[in-house]
Amino acid sequence: MYQDTIVAIATPPGEGGIAVVRLSGADALAVVTQFFRPLRPEPLRSFRLRYGQIVDPATQQVVDEVLVALMRAPRSFTREDVVEISLHGGTLPVQTTLRLCLGAGARLARPGEFTLRAFLNGRIDLSQAEATLDVIRAQTDAALALAQAQLGGWLAQEVRAVRSALLNALAYVTVLVDFPEDEVEPQTIGPELEAGLATVNRLLASADQGLLYRQGARLALVGRPNVGKSSLLNALLRSERAIVTPIPGTTRDTLEESANLAGIPVVLTDTAGIHASPDPVERLGIERTHAALAQADLALFVLDATTPPGHDDYTIAELIGNKPCIVVWNKVDLNNAVVPKATPELPNCRAAPCMVSAHTGHGMEQLVQTIAQQLLGGSPLAAGAAQLVSNPRHQDALRRAHEHLSAALAGHNANHPTDLLAGDLTAALNALGEITGETVGEDLLDVIFSRFCIGK
Amino acid sequence: MYQDTIVAIATPPGEGGIAVVRLSGADALAVVTQFFRPLRPEPLRSFRLRYGQIVDPATQQVVDEVLVALMRAPRSFTREDVVEISLHGGTLPVQTTLRLCLGAGARLARPGEFTLRAFLNGRIDLSQAEATLDVIRAQTDAALALAQAQLGGWLAQEVRAVRSALLNALAYVTVLVDFPEDEVEPQTIGPELEAGLATVNRLLASADQGLLYRQGARLALVGRPNVGKSSLLNALLRSERAIVTPIPGTTRDTLEESANLAGIPVVLTDTAGIHASPDPVERLGIERTHAALAQADLALFVLDATTPPGHDDYTIAELIGNKPCIVVWNKVDLNNAVVPKATPELPNCRAAPCMVSAHTGHGMEQLVQTIAQQLLGGSPLAAGAAQLVSNPRHQDALRRAHEHLSAALAGHNANHPTDLLAGDLTAALNALGEITGETVGEDLLDVIFSRFCIGK
Repeated sequence: MYQDTIVAIATPPGEGGIAVVRLSGADALAVVTQFFRPLRPEPLRSFRLRYGQIVDPATQQVVDEVLVALMRAPRSFTREDVVEISLHGGTLPVQTTLRLCLGAGARLARPGEFTLRAFLNGRIDLSQAEATLDVIRAQTDAALALAQAQLGGWLAQEVRAVRSALLNALAYVTVLVDFPEDEVEPQTIGPELEAGLATVNRLLASADQGLLYRQGARLALVGRPNVGKSSLLNALLRSERAIVTPIPGTTRDTLEESANLAGIPVVLTDTAGIHASPDPVERLGIERTHAALAQADLALFVLDATTPPGHDDYTIAELIGNKPCIVVWNKVDLNNAVVPKATPELPNCRAAPCMVSAHTGHGMEQLVQTIAQQLLGGSPLAAGAAQLVSNPRHQDALRRAHEHLSAALAGHNANHPTDLLAGDLTAALNALGEITGETVGEDLLDVIFSRFCIGK
Repeated sequence: MYQDTIVAIATPPGEGGIAVVRLSGADALAVVTQFFRPLRPEPLRSFRLRYGQIVDPATQQVVDEVLVALMRAPRSFTREDVVEISLHGGTLPVQTTLRLCLGAGARLARPGEFTLRAFLNGRIDLSQAEATLDVIRAQTDAALALAQAQLGGWLAQEVRAVRSALLNALAYVTVLVDFPEDEVEPQTIGPELEAGLATVNRLLASADQGLLYRQGARLALVGRPNVGKSSLLNALLRSERAIVTPIPGTTRDTLEESANLAGIPVVLTDTAGIHASPDPVERLGIERTHAALAQADLALFVLDATTPPGHDDYTIAELIGNKPCIVVWNKVDLNNAVVPKATPELPNCRAAPCMVSAHTGHGMEQLVQTIAQQLLGGSPLAAGAAQLVSNPRHQDALRRAHEHLSAALAGHNANHPTDLLAGDLTAALNALGEITGETVGEDLLDVIFSRFCIGK
């Protein structure tokens, strides 16, 4: 079915020590044989490297010296014959080699097509295919761990187990639709539906944390001037290993910084860059604070531990309103710091106030843990728990599976007609099948794999 | 001596399907063994691929699924044990793997250090090491062919043959210095010096063409307004396969374009973007034309074939002066085009005028060939002749070798004292040894390899 041979440059563009041209398909070896001159004449063998030259057959010109690796089907990334050509990392030899591949009968691969073939040929399920992209895009160790676990296939296994049980139930229900009840061996499907629903609920419950680790959160640092917002921002940036790459779409201007807080990729918006103004209300930068709060998942309300809260602080508390929030008393290292008696009222501030010194670093680790706990909905951090649903597409499919399974179970318990039950079971099965890719159409596959890079 | 193990990310930064981390050194395998979990437990074997996982020993966290290739010394790029780890092309897994390598005892490689080791360990000579960089940076097929030929070692062989003959001559001369002439078996070294000088001269003669193919040339399109300079520029850009990457340092602004003309990487400067002005002299854009000419290796003097040369054309001819130049009569496709009787006088215009139509493409191929011939000093294009000296460093060393060999030969023929002869022979040997790297110091190596990228 997918018998044509595809080719792509698999390494990023630019100057490097190594560039790789990758082919997959039944003719991969035949294509490469047309221009690869191995140093030794024996046929290439699977999982061996062979040294030689790429020679343009038209001009007999040496294009590059290369190492060629053959991975015979089905022991390859795509389960097809795969050939990888490692070249010196220059643009011209790599593009010339690509051109030779195209001239010898290969076709340029579409984005993600190698991974698509691995999926279509059954080596990995759709959730694992998506995980390869999550591995590439991971920004924190936690996000990488989630992606690797998903690549390992735990989610596919869970979903397959539920589907298998539901398929049994559906088979029984379908027989009941077609035959009178007294002709069919009676079977109890209630426990199977309940177990399936329990698994779906458990997966769904993990999604809030999982999506947070994968997609990150936005934090707004708010507070009146001179409480130390900028110092706190810098202390937070220092407190954890710097994030590898900023979250796409964020700009590293003076107001936003990316950080890795307890494994959560976080964008910190600092509202400190406000010009002094004679108007006290204007001085608070109400508009800017308002905008930062509107976008934020969590506010850090910074107060000065050396002075009681004043009018400006209460104004900011009003701006925070119902936004989830952590109160941070800064400057506790100073001599005149006191344990503040009163805190402005904040209806959605559930954590105890954090006492910190951005200057000395005191309390910063506790603050980071508090932030993580608040973002994770108050539940403790599950150390090393990498089996979390982290993809909004999976979360959506699970929600629909939950809905239909709940309806099926309720109907079953209420002795609803079996054809209604069959409809809900089928809908739940289809929703779950979207996660593993057993019940997806080509258009959804197009959407998913178009996000990949070419050569993956 | 170079026993420590180095590591680097060998692929360019950015998102891709594959990233490679490369190690070289006696401990390469021992380093990787600390965090590589192969799927099957047998020891890794040379030139085999092994599938497995990178696992952080501290956290037991899976970093990525990988293919690991071992190339045992001396059959490797560096002649040391080399391990290449192929990962999914994400930033975090690649950087984490690099960190694990560093933690396990490897050291971050300096730019070009893998190639440096290949040179120091005797797998390639210095001219071949430099050729790997030329392969990466090649911008035209001709430049790539030169680089690949040099990588193949022809220059090293030529230089070694000359040095070997000169070493024999030096040995004889040195004996003559130490012992009276009548005690030494008489030997004629004249033919050896002559043969060596002939080879050096032949190599030097190739350098003008070689450097042109590798480094390119600058062309200025000059002419009064409305003769069709911009159309000609576009026709030249269309006439050959587009250049892969612009020559470093040139900007793709409206005035400069990079093209591949008969294998020569060329920067074309168009002086057409001149604003109309009431002042006829100003209209010619004399200053801009002057600046373009000053930088150019060759001028294309564009004239309108439908009108006889006028005052403005003669002004431009004066500006061209002694600059090498080709006269291009444009618009020969128009009905009123005539074979021009008179051409402004140009002392350094050696080619016959080219009759072209930028509009129809008529004469463009002939123009490209004429440009190439003029740039190559009038000599015909040597088809497929890739054995040209193309590196200014080599050219400089050959010039010094030529100087000392000429002096040695002249001294020999004039029966000069043998110790003078020995001095010139030694200097010529050292100059030639700089090409192959037999007589270079660490500081020169530093300069050469600092131009490489990390991971090469």
